[in-house]
Amino acid sequence: MNPLEGILETALYAEDLDKVEAFYAGVLGLQKITRAGNRHVFFRCGPGVLLIFNPEETMQPPEPGSLPVPPHGTKGSGHACFRISRQNIDAMAESLKAAGVAIESDFHWPNGGRSIYFRDPAGNSLECAEAIIWGLD
Amino acid sequence: MNPLEGILETALYAEDLDKVEAFYAGVLGLQKITRAGNRHVFFRCGPGVLLIFNPEETMQPPEPGSLPVPPHGTKGSGHACFRISRQNIDAMAESLKAAGVAIESDFHWPNGGRSIYFRDPAGNSLECAEAIIWGLD
Repeated sequence: MNPLEGILETALYAEDLDKVEAFYAGVLGLQKITRAGNRHVFFRCGPGVLLIFNPEETMQPPEPGSLPVPPHGTKGSGHACFRISRQNIDAMAESLKAAGVAIESDFHWPNGGRSIYFRDPAGNSLECAEAIIWGLD
Repeated sequence: MNPLEGILETALYAEDLDKVEAFYAGVLGLQKITRAGNRHVFFRCGPGVLLIFNPEETMQPPEPGSLPVPPHGTKGSGHACFRISRQNIDAMAESLKAAGVAIESDFHWPNGGRSIYFRDPAGNSLECAEAIIWGLD
């Protein structure tokens, strides 16, 4: 049994946190946990947490006296995929379109299971997929 | 109830997939799902999947005739955190040290719960943490 029980935090990066907060909270309906100025905004998502960081700030070493969280940060389009059940994918696709978010791809994988892809305001590639694409239910 | 039930896929990026495969499978002990040449290597982790992509390949649009997976890719140091129980953190830290992996930070958060931080061979900032840091158990 591996002691790593799952992924607790998934991170994406965006420089305009106002836009991403409006998107993840407003369009995707995720519950915001906290926001720290223009450094980060964090969301609860099922049994895990989605972290959105501004790399301009997180690439800096921690300030003296603060917790020693190591620096990190990326540029470019990251990727994350949300788990969704088959009966909810159509409604999610409609909800995205109604919010003006383009569906970039929508297909079934060879092993069964559907994925829809779209972008967050920072250009990250997001996906909603049935867990069956990984043999999970 | 939000239809997004959790995060199914978490992505990190690395250009040398041989090194990261040896690290994630060998040092962290994750179960490899698949490897596609120098494009990607995927691992199972609890109820989700950790995807490691070579951005040099995934930034390219999909080839004609292949599934329309949108391009993505980042440069820089990403972040992901693994869920681990309190009783397993010490053993994980020892295991990392024995493999020559430096523990970059090791501390307790103000709300309780311990995190250890280290780097994968591509420089991504990895963390093992108790879920209590997010009020989850």
